[in-house]
Amino acid sequence: MYPVITISREFGSGGHTIGKKVAEQLGIPFYDSEIVERVAIESGYDKEIIEDQGEYTSVLEKYFTTNLYAGKYFETPQDQMYRIQANIIKDLAKKGPCVIVGRCADYILESEDVKTLNVFIHADIKSRQVRVEKKYGKTDVPIEKRLAKKDKGRKAYYRYYTDRQWGDYKNYHMNIDSGALGEDKCVEILTSVAKDY
Amino acid sequence: MYPVITISREFGSGGHTIGKKVAEQLGIPFYDSEIVERVAIESGYDKEIIEDQGEYTSVLEKYFTTNLYAGKYFETPQDQMYRIQANIIKDLAKKGPCVIVGRCADYILESEDVKTLNVFIHADIKSRQVRVEKKYGKTDVPIEKRLAKKDKGRKAYYRYYTDRQWGDYKNYHMNIDSGALGEDKCVEILTSVAKDY
Repeated sequence: MYPVITISREFGSGGHTIGKKVAEQLGIPFYDSEIVERVAIESGYDKEIIEDQGEYTSVLEKYFTTNLYAGKYFETPQDQMYRIQANIIKDLAKKGPCVIVGRCADYILESEDVKTLNVFIHADIKSRQVRVEKKYGKTDVPIEKRLAKKDKGRKAYYRYYTDRQWGDYKNYHMNIDSGALGEDKCVEILTSVAKDY
Repeated sequence: MYPVITISREFGSGGHTIGKKVAEQLGIPFYDSEIVERVAIESGYDKEIIEDQGEYTSVLEKYFTTNLYAGKYFETPQDQMYRIQANIIKDLAKKGPCVIVGRCADYILESEDVKTLNVFIHADIKSRQVRVEKKYGKTDVPIEKRLAKKDKGRKAYYRYYTDRQWGDYKNYHMNIDSGALGEDKCVEILTSVAKDY
């Protein structure tokens, strides 16, 4: 049986697209927006807020909201979303092989009786720039800043909820550079690894 | 044309064996002991010393020897070996596609006009224990200590000469877990990536 494939990725590295294609080739579900929808139903929060808060955090913001809510015996909205999201991820993973993008899924599933293949996808600035500008258009913000901002949010979110370093090879079975290998080759090797896993 | 494949590896992860098999499958040279031999000829140092110092360092030792030699206008023996080794690596890489294990080859070749595929191989403690005890036998030292000692030396050596973090995904095109994927699968995907690179 194929594993549950979790994909963490640098912004603009094509991780979403690669994950989707791998799921298609293996004939297994691909979860990204479905998770957001389920969190929205269960939490009552707006989808946009969930997309914004469901895998990004600012260290400063986290510090202030945590202190704001501390000792008041209830969770911060982001902690609540994390909890709901984590349960949904566990639930989906138990249904069978699938691909899950982002959201600390590698960490969340570690405690579960689920076989995972944890993948981290990264790329050089140039290939990420091409992908981001094609998908979201150009802006006045320099590309390095644009990429760093998103990655910083994902990194801080991962750090806060897992107490681990985002991208650290110890947390993944594979870290691959989609810029050097190319999107298609990434899809090919991940599919091949999943089949023999 | 195939790239020059550099392989960095955790102790006991099977990186040497995987690299050798990849070279065989691609029909390209595999450099490991040949580098040691050439460094021995050019430096006059004993092979055993080169094997010991050619990719391992202790932070403390490095600190003392560097200070000992500082201002005396000559290199420490390890710095001299590094310089000779780096030139040999550049020389071998320019001859054509090959596999080079360890010795900061990824960093050394960055400044050269050579296409590289930089790979870092790691594995869980258990699979590394099996491999190390099969190859070198059991000792009284707990396996975690035995693995950590070698890795610490490689890490410090890499850090000293490259000013980078050993294993950091940013320095490699692929980090792969040979424990989870298996040696044969690692050989298969590296060969496949090299062919399409």
